[in-house]
Amino acid sequence: MDNQEIEKIVTEMAVKGKRASRKLSALPTAVKNAILLDTADILEREKEFIRTENAKDLAAGREKGLSPAMLDRLELSDKVIASMVQGLHEIAALPDPVGEIDDMKRRPSGITVGRMRIPLGVVGMIYESRPNVTIDAAALCLKAGNGVFLRGGSEAIHSNLALATLLQKVLASHSVPEEVVQVLPITDRHGVRAMLAQEENIDVVIPRGGEGLIRFVTETSRIPVLKHYKGVCHVFVDRSADEDMGINIALNGKTQRPGVCNALEGLLVHKDIAGVFLPAAAKRLMAAGVELLGCAESCALVPAMTPAAEDDWGTEFLELKMIVRIVEDMDEAIAYIDSHGSQHTEVIVTSSYENSQRFLREVDASAVMVNASTRFNDGGQFGLGAEIGISTTKLHAYGPMGLEELTTRKFIVYGEGEVRS
Amino acid sequence: MDNQEIEKIVTEMAVKGKRASRKLSALPTAVKNAILLDTADILEREKEFIRTENAKDLAAGREKGLSPAMLDRLELSDKVIASMVQGLHEIAALPDPVGEIDDMKRRPSGITVGRMRIPLGVVGMIYESRPNVTIDAAALCLKAGNGVFLRGGSEAIHSNLALATLLQKVLASHSVPEEVVQVLPITDRHGVRAMLAQEENIDVVIPRGGEGLIRFVTETSRIPVLKHYKGVCHVFVDRSADEDMGINIALNGKTQRPGVCNALEGLLVHKDIAGVFLPAAAKRLMAAGVELLGCAESCALVPAMTPAAEDDWGTEFLELKMIVRIVEDMDEAIAYIDSHGSQHTEVIVTSSYENSQRFLREVDASAVMVNASTRFNDGGQFGLGAEIGISTTKLHAYGPMGLEELTTRKFIVYGEGEVRS
Repeated sequence: MDNQEIEKIVTEMAVKGKRASRKLSALPTAVKNAILLDTADILEREKEFIRTENAKDLAAGREKGLSPAMLDRLELSDKVIASMVQGLHEIAALPDPVGEIDDMKRRPSGITVGRMRIPLGVVGMIYESRPNVTIDAAALCLKAGNGVFLRGGSEAIHSNLALATLLQKVLASHSVPEEVVQVLPITDRHGVRAMLAQEENIDVVIPRGGEGLIRFVTETSRIPVLKHYKGVCHVFVDRSADEDMGINIALNGKTQRPGVCNALEGLLVHKDIAGVFLPAAAKRLMAAGVELLGCAESCALVPAMTPAAEDDWGTEFLELKMIVRIVEDMDEAIAYIDSHGSQHTEVIVTSSYENSQRFLREVDASAVMVNASTRFNDGGQFGLGAEIGISTTKLHAYGPMGLEELTTRKFIVYGEGEVRS
Repeated sequence: MDNQEIEKIVTEMAVKGKRASRKLSALPTAVKNAILLDTADILEREKEFIRTENAKDLAAGREKGLSPAMLDRLELSDKVIASMVQGLHEIAALPDPVGEIDDMKRRPSGITVGRMRIPLGVVGMIYESRPNVTIDAAALCLKAGNGVFLRGGSEAIHSNLALATLLQKVLASHSVPEEVVQVLPITDRHGVRAMLAQEENIDVVIPRGGEGLIRFVTETSRIPVLKHYKGVCHVFVDRSADEDMGINIALNGKTQRPGVCNALEGLLVHKDIAGVFLPAAAKRLMAAGVELLGCAESCALVPAMTPAAEDDWGTEFLELKMIVRIVEDMDEAIAYIDSHGSQHTEVIVTSSYENSQRFLREVDASAVMVNASTRFNDGGQFGLGAEIGISTTKLHAYGPMGLEELTTRKFIVYGEGEVRS
């Protein structure tokens, strides 16, 4: 297939998707929930079909020499199918944000003005190998009244198409045009480019995957992109911190699940507490298998640390490794976070009221916390229900994105014939 | 100056602006308001200086053969200076959105999570000749805690630089780094390109001007753009409409100020009421000097109408001209708006409860109104205070943008040592 053919197919799909999404925006909550629950049922009923299609991807993956970790992520095991089913039930149970009206106010002119929450339109998802994203993302988009245009990793193409086929069957049974959920059947990279040029038909793009994919999407797209590149999260242990609390929060942030974006990558310690705190913290962190990359002063206090190399500062390790740095004061901690953090999650451990307030106010990150683990920066933990991703850019959404972030608000006006003078 | 030099200058300015904007985000409301009021004073005190610099632009404009209308927009007359002064007073009186906290909720884990409103960072403004935008936009950005990087029309360069110089004097007198407000001193078009590449240092771009400028900015920018291309607004007069109300709303929408984006461009009339309504409405509209471009059925009813040409449908006339079309029913009205509107402002005139609700729900526009003039779609009329622009794209803001739309919200967490299990 040449590039022109690809562009033609993508444009046709996108136009149909946009048109179909209009039907969805006015669909009653009960119908949307029935679609989600019926999808849960069909996933269980058609497990054989899903496994057969998934087996094609797994076989091709083995042939291509994918790593065991990648094959694991590709597999639609019973456990993964069960988790998709559970996700569908959870999303069906969430309140529907569409149609919510607030801020209604009478204006001096006589008109009454408020805002009504509405779907964004069509969401473009571009993601790497995990095929369960196909169902998870489609379900969230549908519940928020959006169409969805999905482009998963080429290794998962049979799995993604199989899951979309089942979802489309359910949509048809509820008289909803099946084009509200579409998986791009083209694995050629140019398909992504063609998709990112559909500014008239796709309202927002959410990429999920490694930094390389996200940079490619951001640089190529003419559609607004909601994204985060990486999570370089820090804990600052203030002079007045409770020592045990500081250690527990550092340990939890680094070791509870090191491979995710809200895992801890750096520990900043106030110089007045470092002499007591650092040896004790280092002991427990190292006992948990964490390699500590320290500044010169830290290494002097705890000789078992590895001296940090210049490019360790600001690195997202995603493994049992973190930097440790002694700072003069809170100013230095905030300045360090400003220049090395990724605006994801930043924590202060402190007993000082003033410092807690100042940290909350002045640190620029999607989530800023006092005395809690970075691992809480998550849609579920924050009470948004499920999340479709996280944004570390400030426009539209900053932090975990749930159903509400998949909507926007229009102004509505009730008048009685008012005109402007 | 070659392109590389331009890029170097722009990058240096943008880096300084970004750094300076951090100071602004934590500035107390009282200091921000004092800056705005002192700016109002200095504009009055330094009127001579302003007029002298403005005279240079006017002279150059006359030499270049600018139209009288353009020269008029370029002039910083006493009246325009007075309106900038008044705008500064009004913005100083608006509540400060920064630091507002809401949605605080205790979560099952024990943490308390909420959202704090914070500035976006640095706003890039790209606008055409009116130099008063320099003060109006800078004032709104400052009040919301943002730095601002301004690039006005090249014809207004002396005026814009003069206004920025005065504002920077006031900033310095309050110990705020003057780089929070910068006017690009480069009139070469490549300066805009270089500015639109500053994704690390400018957080959002707001273009104001003609459709050509806005398309250029959108296509060039790697920074998110908040914009509207044009306002093609309609009134649908339903079967049950009050006849006089329909005429008044059409007349006000079209004639009260025809050159602005919320002016009316099209009248859709339900076929059941057309025979009575259209002749009466046409009479009053034509008496007010409006040229009516009608569909075949409309022209049959009112032979004084001009038959509409194919490309009149969906045109933004911005003068005393509008299309008139008879529709079968509400479905046809909504479908017409969908394909010919610009998602700006859409109005139904009706006495039917069901139709009012359906129109509010199903029509996709930044403002959807029942029984009121399109001319109300405006930040001041809607109660936002001043407005920095209007957005007809759905991400971040949809409709008039005031102080709140110049901010975003981060998550904040209060814990007592909670970790994730």
